Amino acid sequence: MELRLALLGCGHVGQAFIALAAAKDAELRARYGLDLVFTGGLTRAAGGWAAPAGISAAALAAAAWPRAGRSDGALPSSAAAFAGDALAFAATCPADVLIELTPLDPLTGEPATSHVRAALTAGRHVVTANKGPIAHAYRELRALATAHGVALRFESTVMDGTPLFNLAEFTLPATRITSFRGVLNSTTNYVLGALAGGATLEDALAGARALGIAEANPAYDLDGWDAAVKATVLANVLMGADLRPAQVARLGLGASAMRAARAALPAGHALRQLVEVERATAGGIVAAVRLRALPANDPLAHLAGMETALTLRTDTMGELTLIEGEGGPEQTAFGVLADLVVIARGIGDLAN
Amino acid sequence: MELRLALLGCGHVGQAFIALAAAKDAELRARYGLDLVFTGGLTRAAGGWAAPAGISAAALAAAAWPRAGRSDGALPSSAAAFAGDALAFAATCPADVLIELTPLDPLTGEPATSHVRAALTAGRHVVTANKGPIAHAYRELRALATAHGVALRFESTVMDGTPLFNLAEFTLPATRITSFRGVLNSTTNYVLGALAGGATLEDALAGARALGIAEANPAYDLDGWDAAVKATVLANVLMGADLRPAQVARLGLGASAMRAARAALPAGHALRQLVEVERATAGGIVAAVRLRALPANDPLAHLAGMETALTLRTDTMGELTLIEGEGGPEQTAFGVLADLVVIARGIGDLAN
Repeated sequence: MELRLALLGCGHVGQAFIALAAAKDAELRARYGLDLVFTGGLTRAAGGWAAPAGISAAALAAAAWPRAGRSDGALPSSAAAFAGDALAFAATCPADVLIELTPLDPLTGEPATSHVRAALTAGRHVVTANKGPIAHAYRELRALATAHGVALRFESTVMDGTPLFNLAEFTLPATRITSFRGVLNSTTNYVLGALAGGATLEDALAGARALGIAEANPAYDLDGWDAAVKATVLANVLMGADLRPAQVARLGLGASAMRAARAALPAGHALRQLVEVERATAGGIVAAVRLRALPANDPLAHLAGMETALTLRTDTMGELTLIEGEGGPEQTAFGVLADLVVIARGIGDLAN
Repeated sequence: MELRLALLGCGHVGQAFIALAAAKDAELRARYGLDLVFTGGLTRAAGGWAAPAGISAAALAAAAWPRAGRSDGALPSSAAAFAGDALAFAATCPADVLIELTPLDPLTGEPATSHVRAALTAGRHVVTANKGPIAHAYRELRALATAHGVALRFESTVMDGTPLFNLAEFTLPATRITSFRGVLNSTTNYVLGALAGGATLEDALAGARALGIAEANPAYDLDGWDAAVKATVLANVLMGADLRPAQVARLGLGASAMRAARAALPAGHALRQLVEVERATAGGIVAAVRLRALPANDPLAHLAGMETALTLRTDTMGELTLIEGEGGPEQTAFGVLADLVVIARGIGDLAN
């Protein structure tokens, strides 16, 4: 089958996805009968284009868009400029799937949520690597996707493309996830590792920025907002919660708390920014992000550099831990591809 | 849909599976429209029975078979004794799926391979937790399943029901697994942990036996045969190899090597029985099991007790590590259930 893709946002992840789609083109055709073509793209800096006839991944990878910073930057001649804004693009671009890759606003989930809503309402599948819509509007968007008979998939919202949501849907049937804990913010993990190695907080943050992993505002990472948004996505999807990021307790975080916790760390322990989500005895689901001193025998104590990890506690498999090695745009792009293959194979639960 | 199940072998895993099927019965019906019924069973000690009309998981869990040690032990009256042997049972029992749970012979894979062959030839799906057939005859059995339009699934052959094969099939599309390493034998891991805590080898082995995890012949675990069989299954299924367990190098294993390696262990390192499989530069796939001194920052260095773990190196996700908490019959039974759900949903690649 052919899937016509529209890219809304095309930064590091979008460009990695185009490259991955080009590299895996032959395998996708041979293994899944899947033919991916690009029929539109829009970024704030480079403008929008539409190409109803489709552009191959290889041709798009070779074109200057979006790196040229303009909509017609060396695109194949079948592409025409798209005049509308992002919302109009989500609603009217000629595509089967909208791939939502715009920047995240963790406090509101906008404008990505509006983009997703518009695409679903217009009968398009949506694959998003943007946590905002799932953290802020999962139930509404899931119901909308179901009502329109399309898929809403978001593997790359947590731990890049590490199988978490696809893992739960396809490999853990009839399983109740009773709690989870994780180290989900790679910047904080990198900074804590550098501190443990003797660096100052300033040097550690500068190192994270040099690696391109830190947000422009370090508080987003160190103060636990990124982890809180991810905890919300996991809790709402995997445990049926209906949390919002502001309901995730962020306890004793930030630079000064980190310095104090370092100073008080017991020997043989490692400091981690830990997400902990569990069912409360009185009902409901409670979620928190805090610094924890983990003993050496904890699998989450030894994450190096930018590794992230999640431990699921289940009623069927006991504890199951996933560790992602060095994550980045390539891994996030892979999660987008994995979601597209699920759509093409028709094996997913549309309601997820 | 209804799936009629026949159990060939019903020890700890089989009984855990019956209990799990009973516990999850309502959820399987509601979530997947799946109705599991048992239409036959056979063990060496308790004999065989067939019940074409089907017995519910709850009724079978309440019956004395196979614990009563005889085929008619308090089974519902719809069950009649099955007079033939295991091979006849695999070929002629009234079932859609043969669940192969007989004891493993790591050197030959028999008699389980013959059971699986007979069931596939008779047009039955097969779910097996027995590594032997997959380690010794995967390509032949896969081709046989394809020829007969039935499924051959085996999630529980490595790391109990931890998603490995279902993970690769459903969540890692278009991904090339380039190498893997793992700690796959829980008995050896337990023994090494006890040695690190100061126990003698004899005491450590006695502890493993008391926990019910050690094979009757400890050499099977400590000498690396169990790990070699698992390495073969993983290499053949995930990397397209065509190895046999005897082709997996078993290097410096056994009790005396373990004592020597303990004595020479560098400070801050942990000793692990490690499976390592990779593509050789000259082509082909090489596999080995050996004792390795792992540094503290290796995620496989900190496995406690009976934990097992596998790190996949992939061309899409980089390194991905899965850690199973305390494994046992319940987790193995879950893998069997997960395979049945894949069959019922019709989402699996029959050729796997």
